[in-house]
Amino acid sequence: MNDRFLKACRREPVDCTPVWFMRQAGRYMAEYRSLRAKHSMLSLCKTPELAAQVTLQPIERFPLDAAIIFADILLPLEAMGLHLEFAEGEGPVIHNPVRSRADVDGLKAIDGTELEYVAEAVRQARKALNGRVPLIGFAGAPFTLASYAIEGGGSRNYVLTKSLMYREPDVWHQLMDMLARVVTGYLRRQIRAGAQAIQLFDSWVGCLSAGDYAEYVKPHVQLIFAGLEREGVPLIHFGTGTTAILRQMREAGGDVIGVDWRSHLDEAWAVIGHDRAVQGNLDPVALYAPLHEIERRVEDILRRAGGRNGHVFNLGHGILPTTPVEHVEAAINIIHKLSMR
Amino acid sequence: MNDRFLKACRREPVDCTPVWFMRQAGRYMAEYRSLRAKHSMLSLCKTPELAAQVTLQPIERFPLDAAIIFADILLPLEAMGLHLEFAEGEGPVIHNPVRSRADVDGLKAIDGTELEYVAEAVRQARKALNGRVPLIGFAGAPFTLASYAIEGGGSRNYVLTKSLMYREPDVWHQLMDMLARVVTGYLRRQIRAGAQAIQLFDSWVGCLSAGDYAEYVKPHVQLIFAGLEREGVPLIHFGTGTTAILRQMREAGGDVIGVDWRSHLDEAWAVIGHDRAVQGNLDPVALYAPLHEIERRVEDILRRAGGRNGHVFNLGHGILPTTPVEHVEAAINIIHKLSMR
Repeated sequence: MNDRFLKACRREPVDCTPVWFMRQAGRYMAEYRSLRAKHSMLSLCKTPELAAQVTLQPIERFPLDAAIIFADILLPLEAMGLHLEFAEGEGPVIHNPVRSRADVDGLKAIDGTELEYVAEAVRQARKALNGRVPLIGFAGAPFTLASYAIEGGGSRNYVLTKSLMYREPDVWHQLMDMLARVVTGYLRRQIRAGAQAIQLFDSWVGCLSAGDYAEYVKPHVQLIFAGLEREGVPLIHFGTGTTAILRQMREAGGDVIGVDWRSHLDEAWAVIGHDRAVQGNLDPVALYAPLHEIERRVEDILRRAGGRNGHVFNLGHGILPTTPVEHVEAAINIIHKLSMR
Repeated sequence: MNDRFLKACRREPVDCTPVWFMRQAGRYMAEYRSLRAKHSMLSLCKTPELAAQVTLQPIERFPLDAAIIFADILLPLEAMGLHLEFAEGEGPVIHNPVRSRADVDGLKAIDGTELEYVAEAVRQARKALNGRVPLIGFAGAPFTLASYAIEGGGSRNYVLTKSLMYREPDVWHQLMDMLARVVTGYLRRQIRAGAQAIQLFDSWVGCLSAGDYAEYVKPHVQLIFAGLEREGVPLIHFGTGTTAILRQMREAGGDVIGVDWRSHLDEAWAVIGHDRAVQGNLDPVALYAPLHEIERRVEDILRRAGGRNGHVFNLGHGILPTTPVEHVEAAINIIHKLSMR
C-alpha cells in the first residue's frame, strides 16, 4: 500500500510529500458530473455503492495519496431531524432551522445507526480501493454544523449563529454538546468500518474571534478529539480563516492541523508547534493559474515545509467546481516531483 | 473641538478612548432609511447636501468622536466608466466588468474632477459639523476596487480576480497602478476639501495569501500612502481577515492600522509594532449581544489596548443593517466610560 499519507500524518519519513485535495471527488470532474446528472446529492450520499464509486473516481484518474469518503458534512443534521435540501446552484438549505431552546430540544440525539449508510460506503470504498491508498473518513465540526443548522444554510456574517451564542449561551452549549457527541459517535463508526484517518471540518470557524473560539467552541471540539484518541487513526483538524486561532486548534486536538493559504506554512507551523503535522496550504484558486505559476507556488510551500517530517500537501480549502481538471493532475505530479527525497 | 480621535491617531494622550464605527451612517438608523426611501444610493452620494446630511445623522444622535463622509467605495470605478448599479438587496453590480487588457485600456484615467461632488460633500459636512468632531475621508484600496471591477460585484472565492492576477500579471499590475493613481488623487482632493483624516478600505484583501499580497498588492498600496504622506493628516489602513498580513499592511503604509475582530488586539498590535496606532476591534455582530455582554467584550479590548496611546475604538468591519440602534448608542457610552483616564 502507498502509505505516504499515513506516515506523514504520524511525522514519519516519506519518499515524497503525500497529497490529496479536499473535494477531489467533485464537480470539476466529468465522471462526477455525469453521475450527478442521474442522482441527487442526497441519493449519491445515501447509496453506498454510488458513494464508494464517487470516492474512487479521482483515485482511478490521478496519482493521489489518499481517498476521502464521499459524503456531505450536513448528513448528521438531516439524521437529527433537519429538512435538508441541496437547492440547484444555491448550496444547502435547511427548511426548519434551529433558533431556540425548543428547537434544540426537538433535535434527535442520534446514536449513529441512522448514518449506517456512510459506514457501509466506507466498507465498500475500502474494498474497492483494495489497499491502493488509505481512506479518510470525515465529519463537520460542531461550530460549522451549528452555523448551518441555525442560519438555515450558508452565511456571510453569521448574525443568527453568533446572536444565539451571545444571547443564550446555555442553549448554545447544549446544541454544541449534542453535536459533539453525535459527531464523535459518527466518526467512531466510520473508523470501525475501515476509515484509516479522520478529518474534522470546522470550515467556517474562522469567522469567530479568538476569544469566542476559546469560550464557545474549543471545549466541544476537545470532547471529540478526546473521544477518538484511542481509536488509533490519525486525526486531522481543519478550518479556514484560522490564522488567529491555529494554536488553539492544536490545543483542541488533532495529530495534523489544517492550514489555509492565508498564512505562510512555515509561520503557521511554528505557531502550531513542530510536534504536530500540518496539512496545506495551496490556494484553491492557484489551480487556475498557468502550470509554471502552480509550480512556483508548490515550490514555495515545499521550501517552507523545509523537508521536515509531517507535511501533508493539500489545498487550503476544497477544489472549486470550475477548476481545470488537467491542472489538478499536473499539480499532483509537480508536488511529487519537487518533493522527492 | 473634540480632538480625541486625531490625538489617538497620532499616539498622543487622550482623556478617554475615541470611538467611531464603520457604516455609522447606514440602514440600522431610521433617519437613514427614511432618506434612502426617497433617494437612490447613487443620488445620495452624488448630491452633496444629502451626503453631508447623512454624514451628520449619527453625529446628531450619538456621542461619536469622528464623522466619516458618506460615499461609496465604488464611486471612482463608476467615474472610470464602469456601469454601477446598487441592486435591491443584492449589493453592487457592475454591468461591464473588467476581464482583459482591452477592458483595462478602456478605463478612463480620471483626475478626480469627476468626483468633485465628494469633495463638495466634504466641504458641506465640515461646515455642518462646525468643529464638533473631525471628518474622515475615505476610498477603497486598489485590490478591493479591482475585485469588484473584475468580478462585477461581490465575490466568495475571487476566482476571476486571482485568475487575472496569476495569468496576466502585467494586465493586473497595469490595472492596480491605474487604480492607485486614481485613489491617490481622489483622497488628496478630499483632504484639500477638508477631510481631517483618511481611511483606505482594503476590505477584501484578506482573501489573499501573504505571498500574493506582497507581490500583487503591497507595492500599489505603498504608492498611495507615499503620495499622501505630505498632506499632514492621519492615514488609516484597514482590511478584514488580515491576521496573516498585518505586518505587511503596516509596511505598505498608514499611521493607524485597522485590526478586525479575529485577532486579540494586543497580539495584533505587537505584530504591527507599537510605533503605529491601531483601530478596532469589536466584532460587528457583538452589537446584537445583550448590553452586559457588549460591556464584557469592550472591557477585554480596552484591557488588551493596555492604556497605551494610539488606540481608536471601532468595529472590525461595518455596522450591519439589522443592528439594534440602542445597542450602538450603549456601546459608545460603555467605551467612553470604561476607558476614562
